[in-house]
Amino acid sequence: MTPAKRANFERLLNPRHIAFIGGADAAVAIGEARRAGFDGDMWVVNPKREQLAGLPCVASIVDLPEAPDAVFLAIPAARVPDTIRDLSAIGAGGIVCYSAGFGEAHDDGRALEDDLRSALGDMVMVGPNCYGVINYLDRSALWPFAHGGSCPGYGAAILTQSGMFSSDITMSQRSLPLTHMISVGNQADLGLSEFIDLLCEKPEVRAIGLHIEGLADVPAFERAALKALHAGKPIVALKTGSSAIGGALTLSHTGSLSGANELYQALFDRIGVISVTNPSQLLETLKFICVAGVPDGHDVMGFTCSGGGATMLADHAEKIGLEFPTPDSETRATLTELLPPIATVSNPLDYTTPIWGQAERTGPVFEAALAGVPAQAALLVQDYPAPGLDETEQLYLNDGMAFAKAAREAGLPAAICTTIPENIGASVREAFIAEGVAPMQGIHEALNAVGHAAWWHSARARITSTPPAPLMTVHPRNSAFVAEAEGKARLADVVRVPEGRVVSGDGLTAAAQAVGYPVALKMMSDKLAHKTEAGAVAIGIEAPEALARASEKMCADVTIYDPQAVRDKFLVEAMAPPPIAELVVGIRQDAQFGLAMTLGSGGVLVELVGDADTLLLPASASEIEAALRRLRVARLMQGFRGGRVVDMAALADRLAALADFAVAQAEEIAEIEINPLFVYEDDVLAVDVLMRI
Amino acid sequence: MTPAKRANFERLLNPRHIAFIGGADAAVAIGEARRAGFDGDMWVVNPKREQLAGLPCVASIVDLPEAPDAVFLAIPAARVPDTIRDLSAIGAGGIVCYSAGFGEAHDDGRALEDDLRSALGDMVMVGPNCYGVINYLDRSALWPFAHGGSCPGYGAAILTQSGMFSSDITMSQRSLPLTHMISVGNQADLGLSEFIDLLCEKPEVRAIGLHIEGLADVPAFERAALKALHAGKPIVALKTGSSAIGGALTLSHTGSLSGANELYQALFDRIGVISVTNPSQLLETLKFICVAGVPDGHDVMGFTCSGGGATMLADHAEKIGLEFPTPDSETRATLTELLPPIATVSNPLDYTTPIWGQAERTGPVFEAALAGVPAQAALLVQDYPAPGLDETEQLYLNDGMAFAKAAREAGLPAAICTTIPENIGASVREAFIAEGVAPMQGIHEALNAVGHAAWWHSARARITSTPPAPLMTVHPRNSAFVAEAEGKARLADVVRVPEGRVVSGDGLTAAAQAVGYPVALKMMSDKLAHKTEAGAVAIGIEAPEALARASEKMCADVTIYDPQAVRDKFLVEAMAPPPIAELVVGIRQDAQFGLAMTLGSGGVLVELVGDADTLLLPASASEIEAALRRLRVARLMQGFRGGRVVDMAALADRLAALADFAVAQAEEIAEIEINPLFVYEDDVLAVDVLMRI
Repeated sequence: MTPAKRANFERLLNPRHIAFIGGADAAVAIGEARRAGFDGDMWVVNPKREQLAGLPCVASIVDLPEAPDAVFLAIPAARVPDTIRDLSAIGAGGIVCYSAGFGEAHDDGRALEDDLRSALGDMVMVGPNCYGVINYLDRSALWPFAHGGSCPGYGAAILTQSGMFSSDITMSQRSLPLTHMISVGNQADLGLSEFIDLLCEKPEVRAIGLHIEGLADVPAFERAALKALHAGKPIVALKTGSSAIGGALTLSHTGSLSGANELYQALFDRIGVISVTNPSQLLETLKFICVAGVPDGHDVMGFTCSGGGATMLADHAEKIGLEFPTPDSETRATLTELLPPIATVSNPLDYTTPIWGQAERTGPVFEAALAGVPAQAALLVQDYPAPGLDETEQLYLNDGMAFAKAAREAGLPAAICTTIPENIGASVREAFIAEGVAPMQGIHEALNAVGHAAWWHSARARITSTPPAPLMTVHPRNSAFVAEAEGKARLADVVRVPEGRVVSGDGLTAAAQAVGYPVALKMMSDKLAHKTEAGAVAIGIEAPEALARASEKMCADVTIYDPQAVRDKFLVEAMAPPPIAELVVGIRQDAQFGLAMTLGSGGVLVELVGDADTLLLPASASEIEAALRRLRVARLMQGFRGGRVVDMAALADRLAALADFAVAQAEEIAEIEINPLFVYEDDVLAVDVLMRI
Repeated sequence: MTPAKRANFERLLNPRHIAFIGGADAAVAIGEARRAGFDGDMWVVNPKREQLAGLPCVASIVDLPEAPDAVFLAIPAARVPDTIRDLSAIGAGGIVCYSAGFGEAHDDGRALEDDLRSALGDMVMVGPNCYGVINYLDRSALWPFAHGGSCPGYGAAILTQSGMFSSDITMSQRSLPLTHMISVGNQADLGLSEFIDLLCEKPEVRAIGLHIEGLADVPAFERAALKALHAGKPIVALKTGSSAIGGALTLSHTGSLSGANELYQALFDRIGVISVTNPSQLLETLKFICVAGVPDGHDVMGFTCSGGGATMLADHAEKIGLEFPTPDSETRATLTELLPPIATVSNPLDYTTPIWGQAERTGPVFEAALAGVPAQAALLVQDYPAPGLDETEQLYLNDGMAFAKAAREAGLPAAICTTIPENIGASVREAFIAEGVAPMQGIHEALNAVGHAAWWHSARARITSTPPAPLMTVHPRNSAFVAEAEGKARLADVVRVPEGRVVSGDGLTAAAQAVGYPVALKMMSDKLAHKTEAGAVAIGIEAPEALARASEKMCADVTIYDPQAVRDKFLVEAMAPPPIAELVVGIRQDAQFGLAMTLGSGGVLVELVGDADTLLLPASASEIEAALRRLRVARLMQGFRGGRVVDMAALADRLAALADFAVAQAEEIAEIEINPLFVYEDDVLAVDVLMRI
């Protein structure tokens, strides 16, 4: 982005003056700017009206008193490009283009959108087909519908690809601190990446929430997300459009590209973006991070005043990999002293009702547990009485505030957490936020948020210590399969392949003699994509007679399968000893994501087991090793049932060399699939190779 | 339950008069009875006070004006049994025993609890160590804390094993219609099963919600749950205590038994109990069923006024197996007429903002879609503005009420569903409930509820058409492994086993000759539980010389492994041809659940793949076939990659015979594990058998 555009981007986000261009929709937007507390100048351009929403109208852009920092544009699509040209001419800063009927709608709209983009000059634009921008921090709004939301001086910036969803979020009753709400629409100019790049520089923005339907420029997103990661600003993403039908709907709705779910997950893992799967979790994870901070580990000290709550905490924590470390004997003794006799010292700790609401009794319990248990976060389960039933609210608050104090003294990120999400009213939530304690709504949501934040902490350490290389940009073109022998020959320098010979039928015996029995025999034909189904593979051949029988049978079987496919050309290979494990390794190209490497359990059961992990390339050996260790088949490689042990680092090095080869050859090789890759203690063998060039 | 107890149970639940026995806690309970709207007589027994909560006190039970239908008891544990004897003597109906310090606390408490139970006579009791009973339907409460909740004349009865959790539920802000809230505590007399049995007879109770920490009497629970199923009352269960630590906490908290998660899941599947994993889902599923009813299929027609909402609906539906059927061409044409040009006809259908809030435009869209699309449920995504921002609430209501009318005319269970759970206020929720439309909070929660209800509908049809046989009661005793050959011999009548001979070393050749080469050789020793690790298994032996070599090597290897384990006793078996698939089949006994059969992917990868399903026995062939079809390995049996096809019904018949054998032999055989069971087109072979008797 040019410095001039960057300056205009800041003007748009925090304007001194706003011009509203349009009719009824602009009138609503004027009201929303007022609701946001905007105290700069507001002007209206409308040639047909004297006034709008209590403001006088001017007839045209040239009549404005000066060039507005920000413009809210709500006029028919066809007139948008010329209007933008006029605004650019007078030196306006930026535009929220609420108007729709562009790239999202039809082909003509796409041309109109190109026109609009070229009209911008140095100006920046949000949209078209968007709700716009609410800046809670500096109190401005360019927004066409009633909005809620609030800011205690810091918070999360949320960017969405659905205007209605951003509106829904502003209506939520969770006291999530918000600095900005941005509905990006078609992203003709400013998109998610540009906003991340700008917003992660602002100290008040503690985290960034994203609703993603699709990413058009993945490398740009990666750069922006890594900038935020380095700046210590966690990004929490809700990616929608994962279903077949959802994907189709996404395409028709925002005109952006929806890639496969696994590639998004690989991207998020690579660059430390927290991924959530539902709207509540998006908000709750952001709330925890903004209010409580980021735990530097996965151990939690939990408190409840109910056995049921302690059990629910423990159940869900186990599912998501959080731990509740057991108090040591000294802490146990201290807590036994402090607790009523009916209490059992444990973690999560049910401190029991006899001391409930008595801060002078519960405070020391919180303090002793948080001092004695090696945890990186603290949770207290509390459900507050419903409005109008608040006789006991103060008792809960007594414990909650004693907990807040103990957590602050222990220097731990801390949260109150309800069993039923809504069982904590606005005033209680705000009281805890003032104490730096996150009022989390729902046990699962709270634990997930802690887990997400802790994951982000470790991901940040991993990524900042060994930053990922920039993603590839590839331009997939037509490609064709090469013969298995050729594919193996091309790979031979980076991965060991079986000793083999390609011969005609009369050279079989000599070839087998050369590679050594037992051998495998495969017919080489450009018409045999599925050799096993065609009967074009025979294995475990021990002697010349068996080899002759096998080749005869193969010719007969393939003739039955497809007479056109029969060739007098065979691959004779040495059979390999049984491996410790079989992997599948696939590398393919994607127009959006570049090169992707999939690792998984291999062999014939690959599809049944569904044990696979995808990485984007380039990838380091350590990233590959981490992916291998996430596979279930990793257990098989680590001395399963007293079996042999694979040198995982060496295996990762070999696969990294293969990945580097694929990156270097990306112009030439479109796809590599090795299945199975036999894995031994300190070696591998690519038993079968499929390659497209 | 005796008729006298049953009558007293009804007296307790819907009392004419309540006696409160105790001090401060009893005073709170008096207030809660008043809050519930109780208009019968209330008496207080307290020898130390003149009055309590505005009511005069009598000094002892004999001073009460007549035998109370219900008693709220909050006195020290030691005095409870005698007090109960006094109440029984005067003919009281039932007791809520809030007092704690019984079986949940210590061994003495268990004895006290036995004493208390024997003191009851014909009376019934809830607790001890419970919150008690709120009857929203008939307006009474025996409850020691502030409570919320309401009843529109019908609703869900909720039973919990955690008092605090039941209190949290009454505080929820979801407008869930409630008939009863019961906190069962230690279940010394009345427990979950007894309440289910009584409540499912009441027409106003449309569903029953359960919070289960553990079940002491599984067969009794099964009987009660099946009664509710037959009565058409869905049960929705939240089972907690699934984690290792959660399980331990559960044990220390309610004194009831916590079994393994898989056994509970098998039980729930068997008897049609809907299983949920978090509190919000418990409430939302109950709300959908009570207000909207039960869909008789998995197809949904969805509406939104936002592309983002449609995508989220589609994403989650795909994950949980709900379908959004596409409109046919005729319906498509009708809808195209009715919708604005920018709308795309699809399901979920985004009807787009140009007609938003105009019931005369949206109503016909709802009607045409619900008439034309073959769905069994209808959903409309709507997020209402936050309180105080309600300028547009009426517009949403216009669409919502038009949707309600269309769904009613189409005779479909229907729900409004918010994107952010809380984005629908109490008055809007209640307006929809009055229309028979469930106000569902959260897209995931709503879709899960529809899926749960549809599952229940099909489960009910399955179970009522072929009711499960009553569960076994077993008393697991000490048992020991038998030799593999003996295990196979015992099974030979129900499952084919390899042809084999047990011989000493000098009989090997003759044995191999008799069963036919190739053979497998195993050393038989009572000290070899892990034969493979010990080197006591050799397979694929083709000829006498190889057999001799194998037996020599085996003796040497086992000597190295454990010299004490070497025996001159071998099993020689015919090798089986390669199967289509390998299963593991395990049958074990559990003191709580009786016999359980686990089916899964077999072979060495069984633990890695984690592909298994558990059934409780007795089980029919059709239940077993359904379980087999749920396995991932089922694909391998159904012509995977052009392979052979297994007769699944015949396989299920064979496994049912095995299950029947295990049931018949339950006194004798404690455990059977076959791994692998080789599966062929229309036959099986138990290659390895482990048996404990």
